[in-house]
Amino acid sequence: MTEAAEPARRTRGPYRKSEERRREIVAAALEVFSTSGFRAGSLKDIGLRIGIDPSTILHHFGSKEALLRAVLDDKDAQDTQSLPDVDRLDPALIPRGLIELAERNDRRPGLISLYAVLSAESTTAEHPGRDYFRERTARTRRDFGIAFRRMHEAGLLAPGVEPEDAATSTFALWDGIQIHWLIDPGAVSVTETLRQHLRRITAVADL
Amino acid sequence: MTEAAEPARRTRGPYRKSEERRREIVAAALEVFSTSGFRAGSLKDIGLRIGIDPSTILHHFGSKEALLRAVLDDKDAQDTQSLPDVDRLDPALIPRGLIELAERNDRRPGLISLYAVLSAESTTAEHPGRDYFRERTARTRRDFGIAFRRMHEAGLLAPGVEPEDAATSTFALWDGIQIHWLIDPGAVSVTETLRQHLRRITAVADL
Repeated sequence: MTEAAEPARRTRGPYRKSEERRREIVAAALEVFSTSGFRAGSLKDIGLRIGIDPSTILHHFGSKEALLRAVLDDKDAQDTQSLPDVDRLDPALIPRGLIELAERNDRRPGLISLYAVLSAESTTAEHPGRDYFRERTARTRRDFGIAFRRMHEAGLLAPGVEPEDAATSTFALWDGIQIHWLIDPGAVSVTETLRQHLRRITAVADL
Repeated sequence: MTEAAEPARRTRGPYRKSEERRREIVAAALEVFSTSGFRAGSLKDIGLRIGIDPSTILHHFGSKEALLRAVLDDKDAQDTQSLPDVDRLDPALIPRGLIELAERNDRRPGLISLYAVLSAESTTAEHPGRDYFRERTARTRRDFGIAFRRMHEAGLLAPGVEPEDAATSTFALWDGIQIHWLIDPGAVSVTETLRQHLRRITAVADL
């Protein structure tokens, strides 16, 4: 072992520790923001979950807004609606892929709640998530558009269904039924409502 | 004029004044709750709009929760999604009635925002609007169900469309597209998205 390795290891230690602490804070913030929203979810509540002071959170993130941003960036990796390979996937498999995504989302209500609550809240005055949700909504609608245009070209949309309208309506129905599911989980099924919609607008059998 | 009229008029005066003040507070609270949500919308903000102290609001309503309830009860008269005579209206006119309601809602974004923001917020922990929105959502879905069952009996649904699914999907799509419209008003049309959906699920020409 050379002497030069020593400082590197010393650097890696605290860095890793700080990264772990950040991840811990982001996980706690996700829970608090998805159950209380951004405005009512306090740094104190977040700190209490992992036994740290709000000032420690600010030390790591600078502000509550920056923490929100970190939570959202972290979650983008597990996006709740975009298909991963919308421009390469076999068009015939797209509807099935969307239904599987909805089934997966059924098992992570916390994440669905985070997006549903924060995106509605973001439409209110001076919300720090406003631009983020406007961009995310545009991006998701664009991805749905790509998916349904590819289905259209492959002759896989139902007669008379335009790809743009398929994209706008599927995205809207999905977000709406998720809200209704959060309001009363026993009253509706997100997956079944999406499945029936896709049966109507596509020509893909076996959904 | 009899002497008996005198006390009645004296009573009517202050009563009327108190009613006017309550109406003024409810109107200001509607604006604040629909732009900031319930939790972030403060009694101070509401008071500032009409030049009164938060304590005056509490004198009239007792609590912020009771004020929210008064705002929601007041708005139920101008409901944003229920058709007025769902069990008497000519079934052939139901889709047109829904589209007209959406057109009317386009001109009252404040009211749409109130319901969209508060209903999403109501799914978060210990929100005072939770029961209200669960009941309202169930009632609206039931009314849609009545409407589409009557259309079904009259042979006015598209082949293969079940009334229950027509109700669930129309309600979800409508709430979803309203949220997307609030997030980015220029990106989508609530009325057109609803119209295309109704064209797909009904057999009513001329929508």
